[in-house]
Amino acid sequence: MKKHLTVALDAMGGDLGPDMVIPGAALSAIRHPNVRFLLVGDQSRIAPLLERHPHLKERAEIRHSDVFVTMDAKPSQALRQGRGKSSMWLAIEAVRSGEADTAVSAGNTGALMAMARFVLKTMPGISRPAIAAIWPTLRSESVVLDVGATIGADATQLVEFAVMGEAMARCLFGLEKPTVGLLNVGVEEIKGVEQVKEAGRILRDASLPLEYIGFVEGDDIGKGTADVVVTEGFTGNIALKTAEGTAKQLASYLKQSLMRSWLSKLGALLASGAFAALRDRMDPRKHNGGVFLGLNGVVVKSHGGTDALGFATAIDVALDMVRNDLVSKIKTDVETMNALIKPVTAPDKQPEISL
Amino acid sequence: MKKHLTVALDAMGGDLGPDMVIPGAALSAIRHPNVRFLLVGDQSRIAPLLERHPHLKERAEIRHSDVFVTMDAKPSQALRQGRGKSSMWLAIEAVRSGEADTAVSAGNTGALMAMARFVLKTMPGISRPAIAAIWPTLRSESVVLDVGATIGADATQLVEFAVMGEAMARCLFGLEKPTVGLLNVGVEEIKGVEQVKEAGRILRDASLPLEYIGFVEGDDIGKGTADVVVTEGFTGNIALKTAEGTAKQLASYLKQSLMRSWLSKLGALLASGAFAALRDRMDPRKHNGGVFLGLNGVVVKSHGGTDALGFATAIDVALDMVRNDLVSKIKTDVETMNALIKPVTAPDKQPEISL
Repeated sequence: MKKHLTVALDAMGGDLGPDMVIPGAALSAIRHPNVRFLLVGDQSRIAPLLERHPHLKERAEIRHSDVFVTMDAKPSQALRQGRGKSSMWLAIEAVRSGEADTAVSAGNTGALMAMARFVLKTMPGISRPAIAAIWPTLRSESVVLDVGATIGADATQLVEFAVMGEAMARCLFGLEKPTVGLLNVGVEEIKGVEQVKEAGRILRDASLPLEYIGFVEGDDIGKGTADVVVTEGFTGNIALKTAEGTAKQLASYLKQSLMRSWLSKLGALLASGAFAALRDRMDPRKHNGGVFLGLNGVVVKSHGGTDALGFATAIDVALDMVRNDLVSKIKTDVETMNALIKPVTAPDKQPEISL
Repeated sequence: MKKHLTVALDAMGGDLGPDMVIPGAALSAIRHPNVRFLLVGDQSRIAPLLERHPHLKERAEIRHSDVFVTMDAKPSQALRQGRGKSSMWLAIEAVRSGEADTAVSAGNTGALMAMARFVLKTMPGISRPAIAAIWPTLRSESVVLDVGATIGADATQLVEFAVMGEAMARCLFGLEKPTVGLLNVGVEEIKGVEQVKEAGRILRDASLPLEYIGFVEGDDIGKGTADVVVTEGFTGNIALKTAEGTAKQLASYLKQSLMRSWLSKLGALLASGAFAALRDRMDPRKHNGGVFLGLNGVVVKSHGGTDALGFATAIDVALDMVRNDLVSKIKTDVETMNALIKPVTAPDKQPEISL
């Protein structure tokens, strides 16, 4: 592995753009003293911010672009308008050309996935990329995918997600044999989850080199029952956002409860260390970074509303994936999978978009 | 409305059967002094328990059955073995015959739905029943459906769920115009949710007498953005269980944080009133009761693992639905709906089971 990794950052992504991305990169530059940064976006906004962070400046290069993908642009629109010139496109293109080892963007998820598919292409043997989230659990953390790259997945695609998520869990958690579960409902005899049942049969019978533990339910995610939880993108996205909503709801309940009397306020003051630890553990900035799996390159999506600390976490995740050779691991595993399972589905077409 | 309502209880349902159901009924009998109880199940187990609750005994009747549906029976198996004689079947049958006004069971969900569909039949104009959960939110509570009656739903079925859920919200919350949202993902341009988009178009354009507010995302459920959240059963079930799992996870984090030092333990002691209030607010026993909608009668499913207090809550919900005339409200609304929207789907067939 080369000594100096380079991370390409879409400096214009996220709710605050460079005002969040550049301080995030500055934080990351402290954490990763040998990493170089390619900052793609409006030079006139990036350069003055860079002046405040000399340690970042000496390891950063600005690539000017004055085309930005807006947070509410439709993927097809973003592709049409941002192809070849937007900050998002150029950050991904730097990965394709080998100039950068990974790209991170806090921009529009749909646009980022559409561009990443277009530029980096889907890996051979994979019919469809997925977005994997790192989900904090009672045991530690789990990988949950797909959380929104595509809606729906057939049995083979679910098996591909299992293989890719398992490789990611090895990179991320350093586990040799992460456990893999398929998200399902608790009812045995129901229509419509044929693809989930069929994926379960394949994972059980195909002697893939992964530790399949069977079906898991929604409450198993937070328990950490499996290191990798596999589902299709619609359900995965709704599960992720429902959990985020529930966490906010309970934090708000807790705050309200503690404000109800002077005695409980005093108690809260004495226990403030405990609450700080709790806040820290629940801090969404510590679990930021959706990893795009199944492409010829590592692209990580940061939450759009995060701050510098959260963005630095997303860069951590991206670098972790590169250092642990995620793409090669997936390639090897996909070859094994395809040797064991007859290829069933043709690759998805690239998005049907006239450019 | 007649003066004395009767609730039929499947005394054998739930993890503990009569040991949980009879004390639950006893609690309910205090709350509802004019309600009568039909206790269906093993006489030799119910009678001694009833002796301990004279106030319940004088308003209760035991209907003996020595056939019980096990918690892990498949619905088809349960129907074959429990038809016409199991405690679950007889409790539902009492609703059909008019002997009881509603039935409550903490038994196997799939079996209960299969039997309820078989005995009570789906309402005219409704193609498929749903299970609605009462979901605590930051604003108050919302109705979320379907949380697991069936997997998948087409646009018309989603609209039916919206109409039924809205009627339930009027009964439950006393709102004149509850708001209705369709659960979707945040990505605009995606495949596969055609049925959700189409349902949205119908709800927006068909001038139904309900307050449709558009798409909502997973985190909107806990916020209480809509009084009624509509989705199909697979996603709804996973969202519900994911939220339950997240709540348990955070409660466990909180406990761990407070145990970390003597200072935080002291703080927790002083704030114990606040934590009691929080526990009370999060208490799943206070939000117990999945309402079966779209049948000619009210059946409520209690959590299998609940205790007497939780079971009494499920009985509260069932009585609320009956007192507010849920079935008639839905019937009226479904007629209005079908007058405004051309009927698109044929009713689902009854479960294909040879008995």
